[in-house]
Amino acid sequence: MLLSRQLTCSLQQNSRLFACGHRLISQTAAKIDVDFDYDGPLMKTEVPGPRSRELMKQLNGIQNAEAVHFFCNYQESRGNYLVDVDGNRMLDLYSQISSIPIGYSHPSLIKLLQQPQNLSTFINRPALGILPPGNFAEKLKESLLLVAPKGLQQVITMSCGSCSNENAFKAIFMWYRVSQNTEYDSLHDISSFVLIFVFLGLGCLATTHSKAIHKLDIPSFDWPIAPFPRLKYPLEEFVKENQQEEAHCLEEVEDLIVKYRKKKKIVAGIVIEPIQSEGGDNHASDDFFRKLRDITRKHGCAFLVDEVQTGGGCTGKFWAHEHWGLDDPADVVTFSKKMMTGGFFHKEEFRPDGPYRIFNTWLGDPAKNLMLAEVINVIKREDLLNNATNAGKALLAGLLDLQARYPHLISRARGRGTFCSFDTPNDTTRNKLIAIARNKGVVLGGCGDRSIRFRPTLIFKDHHAHLFLNIFSDILADFK
Amino acid sequence: MLLSRQLTCSLQQNSRLFACGHRLISQTAAKIDVDFDYDGPLMKTEVPGPRSRELMKQLNGIQNAEAVHFFCNYQESRGNYLVDVDGNRMLDLYSQISSIPIGYSHPSLIKLLQQPQNLSTFINRPALGILPPGNFAEKLKESLLLVAPKGLQQVITMSCGSCSNENAFKAIFMWYRVSQNTEYDSLHDISSFVLIFVFLGLGCLATTHSKAIHKLDIPSFDWPIAPFPRLKYPLEEFVKENQQEEAHCLEEVEDLIVKYRKKKKIVAGIVIEPIQSEGGDNHASDDFFRKLRDITRKHGCAFLVDEVQTGGGCTGKFWAHEHWGLDDPADVVTFSKKMMTGGFFHKEEFRPDGPYRIFNTWLGDPAKNLMLAEVINVIKREDLLNNATNAGKALLAGLLDLQARYPHLISRARGRGTFCSFDTPNDTTRNKLIAIARNKGVVLGGCGDRSIRFRPTLIFKDHHAHLFLNIFSDILADFK
Repeated sequence: MLLSRQLTCSLQQNSRLFACGHRLISQTAAKIDVDFDYDGPLMKTEVPGPRSRELMKQLNGIQNAEAVHFFCNYQESRGNYLVDVDGNRMLDLYSQISSIPIGYSHPSLIKLLQQPQNLSTFINRPALGILPPGNFAEKLKESLLLVAPKGLQQVITMSCGSCSNENAFKAIFMWYRVSQNTEYDSLHDISSFVLIFVFLGLGCLATTHSKAIHKLDIPSFDWPIAPFPRLKYPLEEFVKENQQEEAHCLEEVEDLIVKYRKKKKIVAGIVIEPIQSEGGDNHASDDFFRKLRDITRKHGCAFLVDEVQTGGGCTGKFWAHEHWGLDDPADVVTFSKKMMTGGFFHKEEFRPDGPYRIFNTWLGDPAKNLMLAEVINVIKREDLLNNATNAGKALLAGLLDLQARYPHLISRARGRGTFCSFDTPNDTTRNKLIAIARNKGVVLGGCGDRSIRFRPTLIFKDHHAHLFLNIFSDILADFK
Repeated sequence: MLLSRQLTCSLQQNSRLFACGHRLISQTAAKIDVDFDYDGPLMKTEVPGPRSRELMKQLNGIQNAEAVHFFCNYQESRGNYLVDVDGNRMLDLYSQISSIPIGYSHPSLIKLLQQPQNLSTFINRPALGILPPGNFAEKLKESLLLVAPKGLQQVITMSCGSCSNENAFKAIFMWYRVSQNTEYDSLHDISSFVLIFVFLGLGCLATTHSKAIHKLDIPSFDWPIAPFPRLKYPLEEFVKENQQEEAHCLEEVEDLIVKYRKKKKIVAGIVIEPIQSEGGDNHASDDFFRKLRDITRKHGCAFLVDEVQTGGGCTGKFWAHEHWGLDDPADVVTFSKKMMTGGFFHKEEFRPDGPYRIFNTWLGDPAKNLMLAEVINVIKREDLLNNATNAGKALLAGLLDLQARYPHLISRARGRGTFCSFDTPNDTTRNKLIAIARNKGVVLGGCGDRSIRFRPTLIFKDHHAHLFLNIFSDILADFK
């Protein structure tokens, strides 16, 4: 009932907007989606508009607000469309840094919240580690465990992405100590444990390092960084070069393990993202990951796959690492963002060997598990993994076409599912393109030093891809 | 409407329980509170009961569930009473490790969730650092800033307590570098910054250290720990000894600063809880904290007061450090738990000097800010800070009385507001007392190696204190 009220109200507003003759973006490829999605962008002001700028000033009095793009009207945002406080409605291909799984204001989630029996879950937040609700295990089975990576039937929830990774690191250190009969306090102090991060940074190694540290919210670890491959595109033209690049990176990982052991540092695990996201959407071949997996086995290190950004279905499989085709793909998989709750899956042998070993007050939030169960329902019901594959194909094909037509502006178009990106000549051009697109009604995100990344919701369809491509094609044609 | 339905349903269930002749706990001091609180404990089985034990087995298949006390029925839990899955209703003096501010299923929060205009906030979670909702600053002003510690008008939200502390540490390091014109990458690498934790552990220093590390979820920092005073009780009998103890601890802090500087480590800040909670509810005099504050000023260190557990009103002031009576009590104050969202307040000069310096995807959750604004409304409307002072007086007076009657079981009764605790002879006795109390319908928590701590909600009234004291008095009389 509320939903239909909201829809009526919004439709009325739309007619008003149309009637008033506001700037309307070309909608050649637009199509009305499931009944809650809008039919296209609709721009009233530049972005950020006057109301956003006013609110920025206000917020900046309370905290540094320099990173704010604009302020949003989430009540009016629906499906793939983000509405801002100035009434601009934009096709959102960034979805809150990849964290909105099934679009804004999804009717199934509204319904979930309106059911009286669910109210308690939202207002009585428990200390999950000691006093879980009666349906805790059941909800985990209906949500996270329903999509658990093969072989990882143990799961611990956390409140955010960085806690998920940090506690996964702890689980790895505890596993190492127990599996190797190593005592923290005798021969090997906990400070002798390190993890290797496979990570490609933005410039020199020093920067890389400090960026990685910032990302992890850990101010002062001296943990080794191995280079993530930097592939040349188009892949089919650089087969040999890319194989060499990957072989070189794998060698570096092994060298680091040996080098650190000589320094009496134990490499307990290796941490990698299936697609290294913040650092510039770097991909590697399935073969690279299979060989990296072999190295971890050879040296007895844990293999942690960080799926905080890649997980949840956007690559066309629920977990990006499932593309590698291994029987035994990972020991620990961390998640957050689209999963609504943070946490990590792990193998039985990585289970903490006592109570309170992995512990904090909340350990996640049952309200998020409840919503995730419904999100997974929707993903299955609406076949959204195949949708991501198909919509991603349309998007990448279009990007490759634009790349062929505008090679001076677009290069290295790449992607898996809708998890796509391309490079621009430099960060000035990149940022300008993002700003122009926003004013034409499309929200994009940047990553690395010159990439534009696509992180749409799972209900992003091929017609949304075409809508974007039409708008962006015009932008590139006009770009000076 | 829902609430009244719930109440009716529960009242019916209560009559049923009475009629069936279940074990009913002595209710001499019980009184029906505001219309949503129950009128006393009501026990049907031992705790954990059969249903809880079954669910423990089930959960233990998914994650280590050894820390679980019992499973809860949060829908039936109301006010100060926690209902478990076996139908036992207990007076909850632990309130989810001190994280339920105004009791279970508070009518004001139910109402808030039922308002259609609030639905969007619960289902459309934004990336607050880049795309905040239009009412973000307004909600911060109606919630956190309304209760900001004096002089700390800047606030950053986080999703949990450990992220709050970790990001506050980062803010301190950034402040130190900027205020001292120290470059990370030249003379002073970030790894040369340390913080001193004032912390009293459970045994030897090694244990202390590792416990502190566990608490902070940081696996391998070698940061100095200064001892938190261990006061002797009753305070009026040990005035001189306690003064000496505090003076000694302060000396150790200054020694550490000097010692670390000699090692080329820069002590950028000092971290302390107003009442050191997990380590055993250790208190210190207001004079101790004033002098510690002076030391931080003398050495140019930041003063971080960790109010994750003490904040939110339970000591009778909104922030426990307000009892110290300083004009300039802290540079940074961290919070979580009862505040529903994590985060930290800080002085203007601790403001990050650029965008993305303190950043993650969610940076808190507007749904929690919305609920916090309502919680603060209730605290003000119902005068709950004064209530905490009064109920705390009744509780502590009763504990002192029990201590006089059972000195072999209770010692060092102490507290501020309802934030009370006492010691038992050893951990076996402590754990036994907690288990017996639970079976008599009272949930208590332990801390340190032999303490029992009280962490009731803010709607815990003096009649609840008397109810507890009556039950506990009987337990002590029968204790063997």
